[in-house]
Amino acid sequence: MPLINIRLARRDVPTSAQQKAQLIAGVTELMHKVLAKRPESVVVIIDEVDPENWGEGGEPVTAIRKRRQASTSGGGCE
Amino acid sequence: MPLINIRLARRDVPTSAQQKAQLIAGVTELMHKVLAKRPESVVVIIDEVDPENWGEGGEPVTAIRKRRQASTSGGGCE
Amino acid sequence: MPLINIRLARRDVPTSAQQKAQLIAGVTELMHKVLAKRPESVVVIIDEVDPENWGEGGEPVTAIRKRRQASTSGGGCE
Amino acid sequence: MPLINIRLARRDVPTSAQQKAQLIAGVTELMHKVLAKRPESVVVIIDEVDPENWGEGGEPVTAIRKRRQASTSGGGCE
Amino acid sequence: MPLINIRLARRDVPTSAQQKAQLIAGVTELMHKVLAKRPESVVVIIDEVDPENWGEGGEPVTAIRKRRQASTSGGGCE
Amino acid sequence: MPLINIRLARRDVPTSAQQKAQLIAGVTELMHKVLAKRPESVVVIIDEVDPENWGEGGEPVTAIRKRRQASTSGGGCE
Repeated sequence: MPLINIRLARRDVPTSAQQKAQLIAGVTELMHKVLAKRPESVVVIIDEVDPENWGEGGEPVTAIRKRRQASTSGGGCE
Repeated sequence: MPLINIRLARRDVPTSAQQKAQLIAGVTELMHKVLAKRPESVVVIIDEVDPENWGEGGEPVTAIRKRRQASTSGGGCE
Repeated sequence: MPLINIRLARRDVPTSAQQKAQLIAGVTELMHKVLAKRPESVVVIIDEVDPENWGEGGEPVTAIRKRRQASTSGGGCE
Repeated sequence: MPLINIRLARRDVPTSAQQKAQLIAGVTELMHKVLAKRPESVVVIIDEVDPENWGEGGEPVTAIRKRRQASTSGGGCE
Repeated sequence: MPLINIRLARRDVPTSAQQKAQLIAGVTELMHKVLAKRPESVVVIIDEVDPENWGEGGEPVTAIRKRRQASTSGGGCE
Repeated sequence: MPLINIRLARRDVPTSAQQKAQLIAGVTELMHKVLAKRPESVVVIIDEVDPENWGEGGEPVTAIRKRRQASTSGGGCE
């Protein structure tokens, strides 16, 4: 029973229910294809983390995104 | 100092404060009984996950519950 | 920067380096395809857990596998 | 690429954005100082947990804090 | 499908297979009793951590145990 | 009681007991300084992950290090 935990910094445009369903289906299929796991045995959990609570290179993602939006049209930092 | 993390898909009827207290007390007692751990050294964290973010068998729990409620009187899928 | 943690009960035939590389590549590609994540920003960690330390339905996987091998030609329980 | 996950029981006075930024900066610097990690490779995630979902010594933190506030001027239990 | 992760600092006398089975059975029963979870849906993972890798009060457990053994007949620090 | 989990890809030159003690002490002091946490309430767990089990940019760290060592005198990829 593989357990897959996906952790994402929440984006300005939230991850949609459809995208989450695609991630769940895609990861489950990958477990089946590579490790012959029964799909019904695969558990996937997606954690969406507040960008203020996610740090990269010593800064919160909120600061990184602000700087990026100021310098460019902005875009996902990840 | 054992650390116990309990992850649950949030249900339509939320887990009550009392149930959480029972889980915390029960797990702590189990650590004491089986491993002779001092109760004050046991830490329990309960994570409640949005059913849209929890996948089983390639589908989000939201889809599983919808299908289940359509076919029966419904009930916790877990 | 999505973080994906894959937890597996170690099997009698260990997961090969090649299979792990396929899981890493497959999950990274999925993040790119579904969420437009830059591949170089995706981190994947695979944890292989001793079957004695993994419980399902109230029993360690070791006990489940032993019973299964006794009753059939045996096969991955997951 | 070190991954550091900080889990905190949410306090009555929430942890400020500034404090989180200090934690992210401080942990990143520590990784650089002790393990010579490149700061841009360090990822920090802060999880704030509802005190009702956090147990110590067999009780939820909410109960511990209530008892503490009743007996003293109160203060962080952690 | 509740997921329970138990993290323990490995002790000088390792946790036995039997104790792990008791923890798995006990936690599964607790989920059924408190939350009416189907036992077959409960997954338990036990992580045993090297005491050198586990810190409490700013010190590795190895240092804490050494000091404790020097001052007393010694005993589990947790 | 803050819980800090540090996850590292195991390096060719293993992280020493002394470095781990420095990480534990440093993180504990940071919690005290920024959040006024009592040091004795801080728990730190360090997980060292096999580089074959750690993927970045779609590749296992083992492959990244091999390529890096071939092209340069080599050095920590993180």
